[in-house]
Amino acid sequence: MIDINDIEPSSTICALSTPMGKGAIAIIRLSGSNALRITDKIFVFSKKDFNIFSAKSHTIHLGNIVDENKEVIDQCLISIFLSPKTYTGEDMVEFSLHCSKYIIKRTLELLLNNGARLAQKGEFTKRAFLYGKMNLSQAEAVADLIQSDSRAAHSLAIKQLKGNYNDTLQSLRKQLLNIASLMELELDFSEEDVEFFNRDELLSLLDNIRNTIQSLISSYKQGNAFKEGVPVSIIGKPNVGKSTLLNVILNDKRAIVSDIEGTTRDTLEERINLKGVDIRFIDTAGIRNSTNIIEQEGIKRTFKAVEESLIVILLVDISRSFLSDVKKDIEELKNKVSFENKNLILVLNKIDAIDSIDEGWQELNPIFISAQKNENINELLERIIEIIRPNDINDKVFISSLRHSYALKDTLASINDIEQGFKNLLPTDIITIDVRKALYHLGEITGEITNEDILSNIFSQFCIGK
Amino acid sequence: MIDINDIEPSSTICALSTPMGKGAIAIIRLSGSNALRITDKIFVFSKKDFNIFSAKSHTIHLGNIVDENKEVIDQCLISIFLSPKTYTGEDMVEFSLHCSKYIIKRTLELLLNNGARLAQKGEFTKRAFLYGKMNLSQAEAVADLIQSDSRAAHSLAIKQLKGNYNDTLQSLRKQLLNIASLMELELDFSEEDVEFFNRDELLSLLDNIRNTIQSLISSYKQGNAFKEGVPVSIIGKPNVGKSTLLNVILNDKRAIVSDIEGTTRDTLEERINLKGVDIRFIDTAGIRNSTNIIEQEGIKRTFKAVEESLIVILLVDISRSFLSDVKKDIEELKNKVSFENKNLILVLNKIDAIDSIDEGWQELNPIFISAQKNENINELLERIIEIIRPNDINDKVFISSLRHSYALKDTLASINDIEQGFKNLLPTDIITIDVRKALYHLGEITGEITNEDILSNIFSQFCIGK
Repeated sequence: MIDINDIEPSSTICALSTPMGKGAIAIIRLSGSNALRITDKIFVFSKKDFNIFSAKSHTIHLGNIVDENKEVIDQCLISIFLSPKTYTGEDMVEFSLHCSKYIIKRTLELLLNNGARLAQKGEFTKRAFLYGKMNLSQAEAVADLIQSDSRAAHSLAIKQLKGNYNDTLQSLRKQLLNIASLMELELDFSEEDVEFFNRDELLSLLDNIRNTIQSLISSYKQGNAFKEGVPVSIIGKPNVGKSTLLNVILNDKRAIVSDIEGTTRDTLEERINLKGVDIRFIDTAGIRNSTNIIEQEGIKRTFKAVEESLIVILLVDISRSFLSDVKKDIEELKNKVSFENKNLILVLNKIDAIDSIDEGWQELNPIFISAQKNENINELLERIIEIIRPNDINDKVFISSLRHSYALKDTLASINDIEQGFKNLLPTDIITIDVRKALYHLGEITGEITNEDILSNIFSQFCIGK
Repeated sequence: MIDINDIEPSSTICALSTPMGKGAIAIIRLSGSNALRITDKIFVFSKKDFNIFSAKSHTIHLGNIVDENKEVIDQCLISIFLSPKTYTGEDMVEFSLHCSKYIIKRTLELLLNNGARLAQKGEFTKRAFLYGKMNLSQAEAVADLIQSDSRAAHSLAIKQLKGNYNDTLQSLRKQLLNIASLMELELDFSEEDVEFFNRDELLSLLDNIRNTIQSLISSYKQGNAFKEGVPVSIIGKPNVGKSTLLNVILNDKRAIVSDIEGTTRDTLEERINLKGVDIRFIDTAGIRNSTNIIEQEGIKRTFKAVEESLIVILLVDISRSFLSDVKKDIEELKNKVSFENKNLILVLNKIDAIDSIDEGWQELNPIFISAQKNENINELLERIIEIIRPNDINDKVFISSLRHSYALKDTLASINDIEQGFKNLLPTDIITIDVRKALYHLGEITGEITNEDILSNIFSQFCIGK
């Protein structure tokens, strides 16, 4: 555990916390033991003879920011938060400024000249973590929350912020600690050849732990898809109607983010929002130059898209295809790319161009559509929803962080080592090492175990001012 | 005067007040008689059993924004401001949100669903004006302040926000009201042929008023240059070193705005900052195709630049020019463009390429430089500073708004009419009309006289959320 005193406890940090750009209000945040003293030097309260050191916590005050020449930089409100009941745990002041670049720049300069320093990315939240205001998983949730632009991503982040699977982790931790203490007890009395625990019971306990961890690990794929958007590729031969299908879907269900100005979008992707979940259609333009999706070489991009996808829509022009060929195509596709964690949806397009449908298709569980005529598109969307199960967000526990997934995998490896140790009748003190390892990796998630590298890595993904 | 009751007094408005983009915090503002009631419906205080209607003004509270399904949209702070001591004069609530597009959108939706409506541009400040929290000139200063990106622009806006030449206007108003009441008194007793005032004294009073107004009007050019940046064009024949000179200046004195990310810039201009004043170098690329700056036709763009400039730098290659030619060029230039409100600076470049300087040049008060060798550039900058007088900002009263300048010109016209009336011995009741007109136009500046069109025009130049 990192000691708070190692991290410049006395430094007072400041940053612009609102986005740069055109707007009415800009917020500059100041946090640290000198927050009030620094504010006192640059802020004159409108209320006569009011002293910042007599201000109550969570109160707002009107006044002027003045520079060293008593020139007024801004007439503004400041919010005062007194330690310990603040975001960072330290004294904090927030300046609610007129959103002018000049005012922002001058105010930051004044704060720096009076002893503050510029905050690093995520440093306010890092302090919140170091002061024990939140655990590491919650701190990460803050970053996720800010980046969330769908209901699903938002919901995951809020749950994580509120401690979500903390209970699960704490219970795992408690069980492991129990095992450890039993084992250490045995070690203490090892000379006396007393056995304090039943190895079979222990193995079954380990089994429970493993199952819990495994189900968390396996929730990552879905959780991450909820967080980042579900990757879906539409593949198929040229002229089967891929663009038409995509356009029909897009016109119907534009992603929520496109409603709001200032949104940048990866040009290789189109997004829609289904039941609160973002669906990312990955461009498979590469396939357009190919005549056979399976055999053709040099369509790496399409395979990459397929590999990254959770759902692959294989679009076929039913008016120009034979069942046997399509079966073969699917077989070859599945030979090339693992579909273990993927779903293939066969979509037969242009049903308006044929008179009757061969019964044989049914064994491939296809969806019959006409993209051109906007027919049955909803059935396709329903199928996608069936696969992604948006309601799971409300009912189930998910992990959505790759870091957590790695930590859990490391924990699992240690659990397996413990089990092997017991099975191979290894000495207790050897097994104890693996128990400690398991606890270590588990502790990495919530930050009970951490180091400056991990912290830097996590908080460098934050924006400045948070 | 517009009645506050005409302007939907009961509507409660909301808007995002911080810029859209990547950041830590987003502020949504809510103002109106239902601000507390609406907040009560969507916000659950963390403090148990706390009731929003018992909150004190200017206090901050932690809690959750929850939707109709009790799903948490954000865990955030709200600031509560109770009428009348608020920005708008109404009850206000500010939501300090995690800066996620989804959260912003959902929170706005919730506010709208519970009875608020989206604010129009500048509507918060418009309400502040209508509720008498500030006059119209101060409201305009708010917009100027937000847009200010130099010390000069900022200084003007702060002064205007603080009531700057309000005193001057109020004193003018008082004098005019005095004249009016004296004249009306005379009208009341007109049958009795009593003269209540000395017409000569009145004329001298009018003279004072006119002088004050005239000096305000003539401050506009400089004031506007301080606000928007001083327009400077560099003209000259091809290859005299215009680009080199501009680059030398730019490398030295980049404008303050370019330090901050997110700045957009008019591509036709380059800005530097001298003693807190932005200098806008207007592109005169057009002149490059010309062999004689005066005679050549079709260099409209250059003349436009010259016409818009407060300072025109005529750059001459001293190693290839004769005094008599340059004299003629200047004469022709001044024939084509009025230099009444302009300054011409003759800059003789490439002094490093000649052995001796003809004494005759001195009569044109030139600056000798070598742009190539970065020699004497500071002398040129000093000359520019001499002309723009940055220190005037501290000492003098400026108007910087075109609207104010028009209103003052209208006032002046009425003053002249009053004077003519007296001189022509027109009946008092006729002159009274002009006195009222003068008062009317004066009142337009601070908004004592206004109408919905003027207001709409002014506030439509604001951003949303202010």
